[in-house]
Amino acid sequence: MTVIWKLKKGADRRPRSGHPWVYSHELAQSPKGLVPGSLVELQDDQGRFVARGYGNPNSVITFRAVSFDPKEWNPLERKSMIHKILEAWKSRLILGFRESFRMVFSEGDRLPGLIIDAYVGEQDGKRIRVFATQILTAGIQKALGEAETFFKELVEEAITKGLTDISWENSAVVLRNDVRSRQLEGLTEDLPRFVKSVRGAEFTDFPIRLNAALDDGSVEMNCDLFGGQKTGFFLDQTANIQAVVRVLDGNPFLPKDRPVRVLDLCCYVGHWSAQLTRALRRNGHEVEVTQVDVSEKALQFAKKNAERQGARVITRQGDVMKVMMSLQKEYDVVIADPPAFVKAKKDIPLGRHAYLKINTQAFRVANEGGLVVSCSCSGLFVEDDFREVLAKAIRRNFLDARCVLRGGPAPDHPGRLGFPDGMYLKMFTHLVGAQAVGTVVETEGDGDGALVEPDGDA
Amino acid sequence: MTVIWKLKKGADRRPRSGHPWVYSHELAQSPKGLVPGSLVELQDDQGRFVARGYGNPNSVITFRAVSFDPKEWNPLERKSMIHKILEAWKSRLILGFRESFRMVFSEGDRLPGLIIDAYVGEQDGKRIRVFATQILTAGIQKALGEAETFFKELVEEAITKGLTDISWENSAVVLRNDVRSRQLEGLTEDLPRFVKSVRGAEFTDFPIRLNAALDDGSVEMNCDLFGGQKTGFFLDQTANIQAVVRVLDGNPFLPKDRPVRVLDLCCYVGHWSAQLTRALRRNGHEVEVTQVDVSEKALQFAKKNAERQGARVITRQGDVMKVMMSLQKEYDVVIADPPAFVKAKKDIPLGRHAYLKINTQAFRVANEGGLVVSCSCSGLFVEDDFREVLAKAIRRNFLDARCVLRGGPAPDHPGRLGFPDGMYLKMFTHLVGAQAVGTVVETEGDGDGALVEPDGDA
Repeated sequence: MTVIWKLKKGADRRPRSGHPWVYSHELAQSPKGLVPGSLVELQDDQGRFVARGYGNPNSVITFRAVSFDPKEWNPLERKSMIHKILEAWKSRLILGFRESFRMVFSEGDRLPGLIIDAYVGEQDGKRIRVFATQILTAGIQKALGEAETFFKELVEEAITKGLTDISWENSAVVLRNDVRSRQLEGLTEDLPRFVKSVRGAEFTDFPIRLNAALDDGSVEMNCDLFGGQKTGFFLDQTANIQAVVRVLDGNPFLPKDRPVRVLDLCCYVGHWSAQLTRALRRNGHEVEVTQVDVSEKALQFAKKNAERQGARVITRQGDVMKVMMSLQKEYDVVIADPPAFVKAKKDIPLGRHAYLKINTQAFRVANEGGLVVSCSCSGLFVEDDFREVLAKAIRRNFLDARCVLRGGPAPDHPGRLGFPDGMYLKMFTHLVGAQAVGTVVETEGDGDGALVEPDGDA
Repeated sequence: MTVIWKLKKGADRRPRSGHPWVYSHELAQSPKGLVPGSLVELQDDQGRFVARGYGNPNSVITFRAVSFDPKEWNPLERKSMIHKILEAWKSRLILGFRESFRMVFSEGDRLPGLIIDAYVGEQDGKRIRVFATQILTAGIQKALGEAETFFKELVEEAITKGLTDISWENSAVVLRNDVRSRQLEGLTEDLPRFVKSVRGAEFTDFPIRLNAALDDGSVEMNCDLFGGQKTGFFLDQTANIQAVVRVLDGNPFLPKDRPVRVLDLCCYVGHWSAQLTRALRRNGHEVEVTQVDVSEKALQFAKKNAERQGARVITRQGDVMKVMMSLQKEYDVVIADPPAFVKAKKDIPLGRHAYLKINTQAFRVANEGGLVVSCSCSGLFVEDDFREVLAKAIRRNFLDARCVLRGGPAPDHPGRLGFPDGMYLKMFTHLVGAQAVGTVVETEGDGDGALVEPDGDA
């Protein structure tokens, strides 16, 4: 018998608009006693069907919807889970992703709590796929069961359905459950663990392949799929990189007598700089990339990945805020794509300050006619706040700057309009114009950020 | 002597954050007596510089900022205006626009009240550029002066600076001041008028050229630069078309045994369908385009423009809402890009209803695995409202749909983060998934829109 939870009157509104979360105070009854992660049918106060999903009495988000289809009796059974993951997989192929991509994106794929990044690369002449997986909730942990068996069935089904030709033998599964938020679900924060490996493969230095941003080809980048951040790589920027590359590609005013200078701040393994280099090189430009990151290991990957595309690379290891202070105004493209500065609501003031600081510096070191790409992956730092910060960063540099691109997560990070929480990534690209001279009056009291004197000839 | 207008205390906050408009009630003094369109220096209540621009006592927006640089003493003088327009022009080339583009976008280029779409095409072996121009304010009208002389100087400067090789002889200027909002500025609503033509050219059926969305080539489309809507063509969708084409391009599941079916609603001259056809044909697909528009004349252009790219075209003239009711669920791509349904705040309820209706139908007729592209160019209908409408349209069709693209205006419609009013265009693209069966309870009272029965096998 499926457990039924009734909502308080009116509390059906949010889930009925497609938002998959229900908080405990919205339930008409106590969730206590349910085995965490069990199937629950959610009903409104009149007993009408709202959704099915899983409950967890230990979590503030007490219910997460997996299906809004009243005829889907058990969306958590293995057959149904595999079906949903294959649908998600197929959708990525429809969207044109050929090699590595985010295969399952939690709520965006109606699989709340499950992240699977599928990385494809070639080692020793063998095409290998690594399913880098995060299991974030008790419901998903329970539904997947024993991971190796589950993924084996998934891969065999995918081959049958023509979604892939990479065998189970050449597939690996790494569980990246080294995530603190698992504790909120009563789960343990585990060390990374391969539940299925591939003989002879080296996953701590693995050459993943991605669609090239500009053309029909692929870009190869090495990263650490065992110990790297999150699932080892960040796939969410692919559409933004495409858009920026497209804008850069046709620019007839890029310098021809010196290399195009790209500054890649918080570069991690150099995804932005590698793709930008490839596109610029294809058009005959020399490229000099300056990569800044706090991690020496990430910089090693980043350097290798950009050099493979033909860049001359300068690496600067250290705290980005400090390193930036020593940089000159000489960059044609500046990428400011830092890690999330806002991880909880209480971080917002400090996070705002950090975004202001990094972007003030980013605009300071960009050449006239150059591009500044500003990103925030802090879901709790909303777009309007980010806009304000960027507008201020521009003013502080006395700059005229046109906002020419606004971006979000790549198509393999699908969103649900009823669930804005999922669209965490924001990107604005500015074309930097002339600098004004003279005094600018700050109307607000926060004298933070590095206030910059204009180069001015006043 | 420049006229000085002082702001009330605190009213400097908005203009100092980059928003170029000041309303009469924000001024510490009466604006009466100023010759409409004259240069004004705006100061805060302490007499400190805020901006320079033009004033108009007849307009609710009494002041519009043209420069925030205290050392730019007269941003309205001809030399300064020409400099600003050339900067805007150059910025489009930097951004990779090669042929036709929006050259000046009002506030986005710090030229509030001025729109210039520069259309390039070839007729009788001659490359011709048409400056389709809207002058929306008294300030711009005054600053430009006699339009022919102004544009002649502009083109000659542009040639000198290497921005173009199209001579003044081969340049045309059409004033498209057939805009009602001019009346708010005390200006007349004029008929379209060529102030400079090119001998032998035919502007009512002119072949403009645009960057192709997918590749390095150009797309040619005919339109009426004299009597067509707005400036004769809509350039604002180029980046969204690129993004959709990119997603479509790599889809290995597109039908091979029948043409790919594209539905282009409110197609105007067929920009979406022509670009999509080109990309699909390049990949070897047959394409069948159904174009719907209320204007017979627009449809004639649309058909010609899509056929030129190799589409089989079906045109359906009539009210889009009525035509849609007769369409079947058979389209692989549906474009719902209607004209602005919300032109004033009072239109919001009806406009919301219209967006719901067209999108409910758009999702109804899209195949599983197909794309629905939903656009709104109503600046007053904000993105959150549009999201809500789309979420409802999807629910009404009992569909599972992933939001895979979110877009805005193209880079030649630059924005200013302090001026969100300028970013009027919104686009969401959904990948349509499976349809659920069973009953869905509507929680809100508006039983409007065409409620659709599921095809279901229940």
